[in-house]
Amino acid sequence: MARPRVPLLSPDRIADAAIELVDSGQAFGVNALARRLGVTPSSLYNHVDGRDGIIELMRGRLGETYLSEPLGGDWVEVVTQTMRASRRMYAEHPAIVPLLVGKTITHPVVIASYDRLATALLGAGFPDDEVITVIAILDSFALGFGLDLASPDDIWKPETPTTSLARLLEQAAKGPERSDRVFEIGLEFLLDALRLRLGRLDLD
Amino acid sequence: MARPRVPLLSPDRIADAAIELVDSGQAFGVNALARRLGVTPSSLYNHVDGRDGIIELMRGRLGETYLSEPLGGDWVEVVTQTMRASRRMYAEHPAIVPLLVGKTITHPVVIASYDRLATALLGAGFPDDEVITVIAILDSFALGFGLDLASPDDIWKPETPTTSLARLLEQAAKGPERSDRVFEIGLEFLLDALRLRLGRLDLD
Repeated sequence: MARPRVPLLSPDRIADAAIELVDSGQAFGVNALARRLGVTPSSLYNHVDGRDGIIELMRGRLGETYLSEPLGGDWVEVVTQTMRASRRMYAEHPAIVPLLVGKTITHPVVIASYDRLATALLGAGFPDDEVITVIAILDSFALGFGLDLASPDDIWKPETPTTSLARLLEQAAKGPERSDRVFEIGLEFLLDALRLRLGRLDLD
Repeated sequence: MARPRVPLLSPDRIADAAIELVDSGQAFGVNALARRLGVTPSSLYNHVDGRDGIIELMRGRLGETYLSEPLGGDWVEVVTQTMRASRRMYAEHPAIVPLLVGKTITHPVVIASYDRLATALLGAGFPDDEVITVIAILDSFALGFGLDLASPDDIWKPETPTTSLARLLEQAAKGPERSDRVFEIGLEFLLDALRLRLGRLDLD
């Protein structure tokens, strides 16, 4: 028998095709993905656990790309590095965000990234019952900043009179420079608030 | 002639149908929207300025629902009310988020909401060249928290051993109660950081 001309399905190949599908603005679905891979939906089902399984493969593939670097330093470093990496991941794949946030996270690479963050926050002095909350706040932040980076150069263009907005926009930075500044100052705000919280815990 | 049985196209009807289309998980496009409305793409083009025009109609419709309430009180109140309303908007329409963030904002109702925020922050003492940055940080936050509210009850489900995460998750809150707590503490963090920034500006 001749070797098959279409490479065999593999988790990585399925994940890559799913990421391309959603990045291209098309609706995510098992049938659309099967068409893109040139296979039947039933042969796809031999490799993945349905729609949710495919989303988890996408999450894992993105996690390997963005979140698997070893982290070093104190908790501020771990938070900063995780935020930077997550922001970049969400910014470069904004259309995948609603799929990722809509499903329980199980992929080991991504779980490991959250685990490193949890361990760093515990080490900083955050109590057991606050760490998960702080992680969710950090994650929400990274999501928001990632989507901000995916914004157009002009975020606002008032066509009706404003009290302050139009005047302020005239002198405001634009594009990636603007978004980087927003992220850096937002990260400083967040670290300030976390340090303040740790200081208050020390006083108790 | 008999009265047409399909109501005439109007901006609101187009916006509502577009919101339903995207909320239902289908890909956004002029042709898909025309099919949903039971009209031809060319008759749709008589009413809207293409794809971008439709996104702006969706933004305006959502803005009327979530962001048009009059705001009162000091800057903390204005920030808090705007954050709550934006978070709810993003949470209830997560699939629309990538479309909204990808396009310049022009709709007067939504511009007015940002303008109120800008005026309140100027009044609080933030300098001209920081207000737009602070607004983008607030908006990123609201986006992130909105998507967090759209998360499943179990955000993480480790299937591999973890150092801290699995243990912390056993005692963590879940569902809307969890997300509300994350939002309230995140909002407090943000207000703490903004007050700290105003205090530092006072010292300069």
